[in-house]
Amino acid sequence: MNDTKSNAMWGGRFAAGPDAIMEAINASIGFDKRLYAQDIRGSRAHAAMLAAQGILTDKDAEAIREGLLTVLSEIEGGTFEFSTALEDIHMNVEARLKALIGEPAGRLHTARSRNDQVATDFRLWVRDQCDAAIDGLTALMSALVTQAEAGADWVMPGFTHLQTAQPVTWGHHMMAYVEMFARDRSRFTDARVRMNESPLGAAALAGTSFPIDRHATATALGFDRPSANSLDAVADRDFALEFLSAAAICAMHLSRFAEELVIWSSAQFRFVALSDRFSTGSSIMPQKKNPDAAELIRAKIGRILGAQVALFTIMKGLPLTYSKDMQEDKEQTFDAADSLMLALAAMEGMVKDMEANRPSLEAAASSGFSTATDLADWLVRELDLPFRDAHHVTGTLVAMAEKKGCDLPDLSLAEMQSVHEGIRDDVFGVLGVHNSVASRMSYGGTAPDQVRAQVARWKEMLG
Amino acid sequence: MNDTKSNAMWGGRFAAGPDAIMEAINASIGFDKRLYAQDIRGSRAHAAMLAAQGILTDKDAEAIREGLLTVLSEIEGGTFEFSTALEDIHMNVEARLKALIGEPAGRLHTARSRNDQVATDFRLWVRDQCDAAIDGLTALMSALVTQAEAGADWVMPGFTHLQTAQPVTWGHHMMAYVEMFARDRSRFTDARVRMNESPLGAAALAGTSFPIDRHATATALGFDRPSANSLDAVADRDFALEFLSAAAICAMHLSRFAEELVIWSSAQFRFVALSDRFSTGSSIMPQKKNPDAAELIRAKIGRILGAQVALFTIMKGLPLTYSKDMQEDKEQTFDAADSLMLALAAMEGMVKDMEANRPSLEAAASSGFSTATDLADWLVRELDLPFRDAHHVTGTLVAMAEKKGCDLPDLSLAEMQSVHEGIRDDVFGVLGVHNSVASRMSYGGTAPDQVRAQVARWKEMLG
Amino acid sequence: MNDTKSNAMWGGRFAAGPDAIMEAINASIGFDKRLYAQDIRGSRAHAAMLAAQGILTDKDAEAIREGLLTVLSEIEGGTFEFSTALEDIHMNVEARLKALIGEPAGRLHTARSRNDQVATDFRLWVRDQCDAAIDGLTALMSALVTQAEAGADWVMPGFTHLQTAQPVTWGHHMMAYVEMFARDRSRFTDARVRMNESPLGAAALAGTSFPIDRHATATALGFDRPSANSLDAVADRDFALEFLSAAAICAMHLSRFAEELVIWSSAQFRFVALSDRFSTGSSIMPQKKNPDAAELIRAKIGRILGAQVALFTIMKGLPLTYSKDMQEDKEQTFDAADSLMLALAAMEGMVKDMEANRPSLEAAASSGFSTATDLADWLVRELDLPFRDAHHVTGTLVAMAEKKGCDLPDLSLAEMQSVHEGIRDDVFGVLGVHNSVASRMSYGGTAPDQVRAQVARWKEMLG
Amino acid sequence: MNDTKSNAMWGGRFAAGPDAIMEAINASIGFDKRLYAQDIRGSRAHAAMLAAQGILTDKDAEAIREGLLTVLSEIEGGTFEFSTALEDIHMNVEARLKALIGEPAGRLHTARSRNDQVATDFRLWVRDQCDAAIDGLTALMSALVTQAEAGADWVMPGFTHLQTAQPVTWGHHMMAYVEMFARDRSRFTDARVRMNESPLGAAALAGTSFPIDRHATATALGFDRPSANSLDAVADRDFALEFLSAAAICAMHLSRFAEELVIWSSAQFRFVALSDRFSTGSSIMPQKKNPDAAELIRAKIGRILGAQVALFTIMKGLPLTYSKDMQEDKEQTFDAADSLMLALAAMEGMVKDMEANRPSLEAAASSGFSTATDLADWLVRELDLPFRDAHHVTGTLVAMAEKKGCDLPDLSLAEMQSVHEGIRDDVFGVLGVHNSVASRMSYGGTAPDQVRAQVARWKEMLG
Repeated sequence: MNDTKSNAMWGGRFAAGPDAIMEAINASIGFDKRLYAQDIRGSRAHAAMLAAQGILTDKDAEAIREGLLTVLSEIEGGTFEFSTALEDIHMNVEARLKALIGEPAGRLHTARSRNDQVATDFRLWVRDQCDAAIDGLTALMSALVTQAEAGADWVMPGFTHLQTAQPVTWGHHMMAYVEMFARDRSRFTDARVRMNESPLGAAALAGTSFPIDRHATATALGFDRPSANSLDAVADRDFALEFLSAAAICAMHLSRFAEELVIWSSAQFRFVALSDRFSTGSSIMPQKKNPDAAELIRAKIGRILGAQVALFTIMKGLPLTYSKDMQEDKEQTFDAADSLMLALAAMEGMVKDMEANRPSLEAAASSGFSTATDLADWLVRELDLPFRDAHHVTGTLVAMAEKKGCDLPDLSLAEMQSVHEGIRDDVFGVLGVHNSVASRMSYGGTAPDQVRAQVARWKEMLG
Repeated sequence: MNDTKSNAMWGGRFAAGPDAIMEAINASIGFDKRLYAQDIRGSRAHAAMLAAQGILTDKDAEAIREGLLTVLSEIEGGTFEFSTALEDIHMNVEARLKALIGEPAGRLHTARSRNDQVATDFRLWVRDQCDAAIDGLTALMSALVTQAEAGADWVMPGFTHLQTAQPVTWGHHMMAYVEMFARDRSRFTDARVRMNESPLGAAALAGTSFPIDRHATATALGFDRPSANSLDAVADRDFALEFLSAAAICAMHLSRFAEELVIWSSAQFRFVALSDRFSTGSSIMPQKKNPDAAELIRAKIGRILGAQVALFTIMKGLPLTYSKDMQEDKEQTFDAADSLMLALAAMEGMVKDMEANRPSLEAAASSGFSTATDLADWLVRELDLPFRDAHHVTGTLVAMAEKKGCDLPDLSLAEMQSVHEGIRDDVFGVLGVHNSVASRMSYGGTAPDQVRAQVARWKEMLG
Repeated sequence: MNDTKSNAMWGGRFAAGPDAIMEAINASIGFDKRLYAQDIRGSRAHAAMLAAQGILTDKDAEAIREGLLTVLSEIEGGTFEFSTALEDIHMNVEARLKALIGEPAGRLHTARSRNDQVATDFRLWVRDQCDAAIDGLTALMSALVTQAEAGADWVMPGFTHLQTAQPVTWGHHMMAYVEMFARDRSRFTDARVRMNESPLGAAALAGTSFPIDRHATATALGFDRPSANSLDAVADRDFALEFLSAAAICAMHLSRFAEELVIWSSAQFRFVALSDRFSTGSSIMPQKKNPDAAELIRAKIGRILGAQVALFTIMKGLPLTYSKDMQEDKEQTFDAADSLMLALAAMEGMVKDMEANRPSLEAAASSGFSTATDLADWLVRELDLPFRDAHHVTGTLVAMAEKKGCDLPDLSLAEMQSVHEGIRDDVFGVLGVHNSVASRMSYGGTAPDQVRAQVARWKEMLG
Repeated sequence: MNDTKSNAMWGGRFAAGPDAIMEAINASIGFDKRLYAQDIRGSRAHAAMLAAQGILTDKDAEAIREGLLTVLSEIEGGTFEFSTALEDIHMNVEARLKALIGEPAGRLHTARSRNDQVATDFRLWVRDQCDAAIDGLTALMSALVTQAEAGADWVMPGFTHLQTAQPVTWGHHMMAYVEMFARDRSRFTDARVRMNESPLGAAALAGTSFPIDRHATATALGFDRPSANSLDAVADRDFALEFLSAAAICAMHLSRFAEELVIWSSAQFRFVALSDRFSTGSSIMPQKKNPDAAELIRAKIGRILGAQVALFTIMKGLPLTYSKDMQEDKEQTFDAADSLMLALAAMEGMVKDMEANRPSLEAAASSGFSTATDLADWLVRELDLPFRDAHHVTGTLVAMAEKKGCDLPDLSLAEMQSVHEGIRDDVFGVLGVHNSVASRMSYGGTAPDQVRAQVARWKEMLG
């Protein structure tokens, strides 16, 4: 360990070694080891390019390639010993490479720097997380479409202000989330395209005088192109902030659905039954069945938003190019990505398992004067009342029903005519919840046929 | 005022009127009047569609159209009296319309609700802000390209950790920000595309039974299509969050540049002179010339990030569809958009006016052993040393020069050879800063020719 | 206007005047005019001290005093003309003072600077807001205690995970919020004590060579003492951040209560009826009675947290002492304070007006096996079962009742004994909700007597 | 493992076991094991009280006590096997206790619940962190006072807007941070007092029917009293939010000092030399000595603010009492506390080691017309000019000196008199920086004697 320290990467310049506090605050290997696969992949691409350009001999390149594969298998096999004194994943890998292959290891760092190396590793990692989010969202959307298809005509209350507003369909409600998650998915897609430029070859910040081929390493690593400015390449972390922003928006959507599941699971609502797999009991109250997974999903927005605020605050006001502050980018992004993927998987599982309580939904939809709007619309359509007048007539009828303790269809025609004499018997046709939802045939409306059309569209798109 | 109150929009249902506290917390007209143009534009499109579909008579539609134009000109002429008792912009406009044209005004609200109306208004407003941000960024990028073209070969220190690392060029540094702002611009472009769906016709939440044509109103308002789910259309504000996220990332970039301008303006750096137009004096220290505009731009990230956190927190855990909490979306977005546009304009102005202090930049670039990397690279390239060994030799030479109180080019060949005997006289060729930057010809590197190539590329793209 | 500009406060140093963008980003008079009373109060204290120390003649001091009172009455009378060219409240007041009294106005700024002036003004303002928050919280606590006293023995469900856990009392629930708001109140009290030091006399940053008496101005302005370090006095804004933090924690508490009110107002819960004063209707759904005030209160945490994040981000990494970034402290704090005071007032109003639905609360408390814990405790206490075993027995009985579709008291003794033979007839005594709550006599427990004791304690403390 | 699962704490109620996703999202043992000492301490106090109250036999209590000490030593000895299937630290400890002592282990949970247990554990942990922060701040303040004492009369520039404003002393600057950190310390002190109430005995939420003595357990655990409302006791986390707020404000102060150290370490400033212990080198630029520790300290505000935003967002809108969302409180608080303690320790180390570059500080203080204010004050004091006139005269002289390329003391008396004829030869006495700082004798001013007085005051207070 002492040897390792005295051989530490910045040579003989420092008389005093970093003490315990400095090591604790400075070393990143505790978390950036998670980038090992990206780091080795980048080094392999770099070495191959150096050889192709004649900067490295083929023999050295081959030794490096083999050595890196050995390091990779050691890490994946759990036999690699990470060293805090070596600070980060880059130096840990390189030190082990040197132990394995000797002198050629020292040639790998030609024409690059830790600055472009870590930018490349981290970008590759975040790019993978975009893909993971896209997959997680697609699976969740499929689960929602399945629910929607089954319940395209199940009636439930549509809420505003958590007050029953109008009847809608279960399928329509499920499909609302499909739309939200589809936009989330497209945000990750856009972010992925935008971040897909290779920083490798930017070196410390200025580029390099070696005749490297940045397009070659970009292609080898699946990037669309090399980044066009070396200062920007090592200095910016906007790609991580964009990922975090997309994740936070997605977590916002998840929090809303999770809130609904918690409320719907209450004894007072009983709209859904969550499966035992995603619920837990109480240590003191044996009868409880708690929607823990929903609550934990709901909480994830806090965690992800916190990570986003952290990275924004960290990046605020940093002069170009690299500052050590930026080392704090990774734990935030790792944690947010893990939280998002876990929340997506748990939500997918809950959606697959959950069972709508149709009688409870329909009963709720039928109460609370939920078809008052249908009545008002009938007055407009059939009696040619201006909307505002129709609204006033309806309000008076609702007040009458409320005073009587009954619902709108329970008023007699005579009672209705006492408020507006033009009301005819056929008004009762629009006061039932099934008629109500069926009538909402406008594009994107809650009518079962509209819902089924959207289900069909999404089934095709989701494959 | 009393009359206005008793005519308040929800009819006779409430015995007690809202008192002062409720009015203060509930009314939005104080800020949402900013949406007047969007509101009237949406109403005109809605009325025209209703007429085309036969839901409204042509006569009524014409009266509404004329009335709305009158309201618009009253507001823009400053003669419109906004009423807090009428709560919001929608009711203010409609009440005035009724006063102007009478009964047909009451027919305008057929087949829509304030829920889809406000969603439409706000979306139109945010869409406009995307366009404004794109314009502001384009202008700023042009100013930066102009600076870069003039100073493509001016040498300055490239910093990491605010320590001189390697010489770079002024043009290269300016172009780094062009890349950042270009990505910001593309974020607003993507956000605009994603949000460009029309909520109009979603009505309260369920769609409507009137035979409306949502595609027609979408087209009339410049939307790409109607939104596909009416619940989603009135319930989500992710488009505002995406706008705020893009704005916050852009503000992060601005804060970094602003920080540099503040530091560069210090007596210790003297890298730039800001114009008097964007500086101020002190009330007690007459000699001061303070970079106020830069500092205020730097601060804007706080304001915009705060707005974003506010809206995320507000939206967290809201059940579908509309909840009154969502009324708080507008002030946050208005303030963030204003802050961003102002910061972009101020930064553009500062960039246009600022003058680089070339002697100061070059002197700084030449000190601090800034070409140590060039020396290390020479050792690798010419003497075939492994990079890590070259690094060690260079470190020893830097320590030697530091002890002597001189710079690297001031060491004698003999002194250099005492550290590594293979060093030859031509090493001095790479120790000058102009040679250093010229050598960094890798794609995206700091070499003047590379910078000029990027300038040319961007001049063409910026038109 | 041109004259005003050429007389702008920093003298003749700047050739170019600030243009429109600079004025827009730089001027603070649009918001800091809210500090007029504090500014004038501070100036009066400063002038009186200067006279007492012989730095100002009594005649000049008298002229200044009279002039400032005139300015104050002009502002409060609405006849004062604020000028953006004069940038801020300090220069607006001083310029008007000069117009009123001539030359002595120029002597008021002796031995001070805008830096200590604004720090003093803002601190006075925030101190007032602490007092306002304390008052608002006290009023809200009183309203809650009144509710608690009335309903000390009304039974309702105690929830965890929004699942019925155990019966509690309405009074107990109300008193939980009294405890929370009491801690909020003590936070504002502590913050007030900590911030109550006078920055006045710190001048620009270094103190002054004039023989001022900072203790005298501190006393005159109600401060406990002058601040002990002039750099700190003008550079820090931690007092505003502490106020915002206390406000955010309070808003968190308010958001929880507001959420409960929204849920309790739903048709499914019907636990409370909110008054019409704090509810609104719908433009399309006449039957709706929406808990708008509760929703808006719930949203305020977003706004206040956003303000706090904004100011933290703004202050991050600013070198001492004053930077213009700090001008952005005021709007955030103003808005957060306004939001908090409004939310407290609205919540107090809602609590005063709201009516618990006792039958609905008791019915909910009695369902859902809410006394399962009482059964488990009985098994421990009477049969000496280890708690974990009692828990298991209870779980089995709950499962049995659930399968039968009945509640625990509806099981027969024989059925109970089939699970554990030791169960005796007196077990039924603990299965009623009134017995359950009465038994929870531990300190701070939900037993009506405990609740009444806490009510009595708080009534005395609240006066 | 399977056995463990089937014995999971909520008995036989759930048919399906939690699958991998649920376990991953639900289990907290991965982080809450950090509360082991607090958990065992709380259990010991609870068991002793149960015995004293006759609820537990002395024999059982003794077995529990011994068993818990064994568990404690196993955990601290590293031989304890934590199980994810057992979810959390509470169940892990209890399960091991049962394995060790059998049946009495099941009696420990009498009259408590995981809800009050975790609230107690977490509160004890946060209370310890308040103490740790207080200690860390005290040590840092002592280091600053030592720096201040040594440099009470070293002259340096006082900055506003990072522009030289007036000369100040090194000691004065150091003492400014002592004041800030003293307020931070008092915030942690206040928070500690406020949170120091015992939740233990609140049970699940309602209190308990067992005759427990909550005052006894409160005393045993060092709490000032039991909390007065059992719902509040298990439902709130405001104590953690207050800790996080105090930590964030402290981190804000640290970020400002860290920013100064980064700027002061630049080649352009050279105000301080940081020790090698708290700096690092570069992998490619051997000459670099980077202020990494300062940068990492600067970044911590991001992390801590992020944690605070996370917890605020998580707690927003949660109905009483416990919801599973609240499980997310711990990782945020753990990470923020760790970050703060590390940053305080690193800053203390840096301050102890750092060396001010006196010649560089004095040279900077003497340039930039830094005594212009002294000149203006002289004009007021000696010539009785109104301040604003004096300001104007000074501005003209500064402009004259700037045009000549000299400093104020280099102007001739004749030149000065050409601007204002009353200027006399003794004006030059106030234009030197040492005279300038010595003259600022107002309380809290930068005069060395004032600084020494504050140093003496703080040395006594810090002991």
